[in-house]
Amino acid sequence: MSDVARAAGVSSATVSYVLSGKRPVAPQTREAVEAAIAELGFAVNTAARSLRTGRSSMVALIVPDIANPFFAQLAATLQEELRGLGIHILVCNTRARRDEERALLAEALQQRFAGVVITPFRLLPRDLDALHQAGIPVVVSADVPFGSADLVVPEAKAATRQALEKVKAARRRRIAMIAGPRDATGGDPRLELLRTLAPQFGTSLPRELVVRGEHSREAGAAGFAELMSRRYRPDAVFCANDVIAIGAMDKASELGIDIPGEVALVGHDDAFFASLVRPQLTTIRYPADEVGRAAARLLKERFEGRSVRRTVQVKAEFIARASV
Amino acid sequence: MSDVARAAGVSSATVSYVLSGKRPVAPQTREAVEAAIAELGFAVNTAARSLRTGRSSMVALIVPDIANPFFAQLAATLQEELRGLGIHILVCNTRARRDEERALLAEALQQRFAGVVITPFRLLPRDLDALHQAGIPVVVSADVPFGSADLVVPEAKAATRQALEKVKAARRRRIAMIAGPRDATGGDPRLELLRTLAPQFGTSLPRELVVRGEHSREAGAAGFAELMSRRYRPDAVFCANDVIAIGAMDKASELGIDIPGEVALVGHDDAFFASLVRPQLTTIRYPADEVGRAAARLLKERFEGRSVRRTVQVKAEFIARASV
Repeated sequence: MSDVARAAGVSSATVSYVLSGKRPVAPQTREAVEAAIAELGFAVNTAARSLRTGRSSMVALIVPDIANPFFAQLAATLQEELRGLGIHILVCNTRARRDEERALLAEALQQRFAGVVITPFRLLPRDLDALHQAGIPVVVSADVPFGSADLVVPEAKAATRQALEKVKAARRRRIAMIAGPRDATGGDPRLELLRTLAPQFGTSLPRELVVRGEHSREAGAAGFAELMSRRYRPDAVFCANDVIAIGAMDKASELGIDIPGEVALVGHDDAFFASLVRPQLTTIRYPADEVGRAAARLLKERFEGRSVRRTVQVKAEFIARASV
Repeated sequence: MSDVARAAGVSSATVSYVLSGKRPVAPQTREAVEAAIAELGFAVNTAARSLRTGRSSMVALIVPDIANPFFAQLAATLQEELRGLGIHILVCNTRARRDEERALLAEALQQRFAGVVITPFRLLPRDLDALHQAGIPVVVSADVPFGSADLVVPEAKAATRQALEKVKAARRRRIAMIAGPRDATGGDPRLELLRTLAPQFGTSLPRELVVRGEHSREAGAAGFAELMSRRYRPDAVFCANDVIAIGAMDKASELGIDIPGEVALVGHDDAFFASLVRPQLTTIRYPADEVGRAAARLLKERFEGRSVRRTVQVKAEFIARASV
């Protein structure tokens, strides 16, 4: 502040009045101060303000898999949206482990982060209590509500219906799913949705055609191999995300199984590589940029004093490509 | 510590002796304390120690493009390697902008991070001075030395020679490059290497066949379109990284130009998607996991007191696939 005052040839108090708007300042004085601020590259923002109040300008984005492009896009959007506040986004990878999820939350608490955006994987809602008590805003991006945190949640019913419609039109009856692990917090809402809607399309998702694993390419390959070894072999496979679907494609190619000729494949998320693979992956798009914008908005509202909990729904979209 | 003491039924001082090894402790007491530590999941590590000395347990990984899988892999490896020390990796995206690079370094300094690993893009070596002065270890991952920081650097001469050999065998003579921006710190060593080695393979990299842009898919598409509009049209295009190469493939497909039939394409890095695209991308692999292990080792040595500067070379490798 004193640098600005010196450059503008005014007192520090005057700079403070210009910034806070608390007292009237002559137009040419205001201009001189603003020019000095611009010249010095001095960021005037709420983050700087919160810094003075003992809180950092950092927001942690805590995700289960930093290598999943969905989260890279989410990080980029959050950064873009919160940049005007001088906020820095720090991306933290939990590798879907609860101990790491908790350790990172503890770190965010200790360092008095300005906020947290998290996609919990094995965390429990009570793990957020300490942050809530400390008044650090937390936005959860998940498929189902998570305790009392602000929430960004998909509305995927229509898109899942369209996917099932398409699979039905391709005359597939034996649908299967490569789902996430059984012990993920909140269960597996993508699996539940598919199971609920399947009967409307003349099919079902029998228990024996659900295989489980981590959200990884390796787990996708293993899950696909397992399904192909079943006596009641599926002719359409839904995957909990696109990373898993790529693993399934690896294995199909290895086993000489034609996609979509023998087995139709549906991903989830629409990661950028979904259109790079051959055949191009049919998937349910969950737009990371919209999720990021919603999360940024929820954080901003908290910075500005909102105290009641909010939920924002983001619409998923069926993307028909070549794998069904 | 008092939790551990209570659980083990000993005094806090005893726990402290076990941890520090400063005084002898009876074997069964030591065992009781260690069991209590294990049970409570209490991490005894240098990070916790440094925390007590006022330094955080966070290491910032500062990268130009968080969406580039090279950096996601680097982050995952760093995390894996430093986990035993209780270190958390925070990934920060600079979007290749110097102001963001500097702001993130300032943040790392202010929060007394345990260390920084950075791939500078437009930063200047002097921007690291404050961190050096504060004794915060910095490891630079770059193609050329960067001031007095510890360095992880590629040895890519042999791999680039093999790529040129392969391009020559495919009877290509008019080679081009889609390079990074002109104002990147340290210039463009991948371009320089290609220019230096090309004459050994009966060709050259003329100035008119070098186009420049950011390290993005969009820039790759634009660069490829520009090269294809030249009168002296290239029949082999090298790209500064695989993300650029994917953009070039997008454009080739849009223009109906066959790869490798009409134009051979060589990427750099071997991102995971290089084997997903069709044709599969021929590239120069720079192993992110080895870079991560080297960077982690350099940081650890600094934590342990090394004061002289070190450089580690990581070997690049030519990966022949289907795009040449």
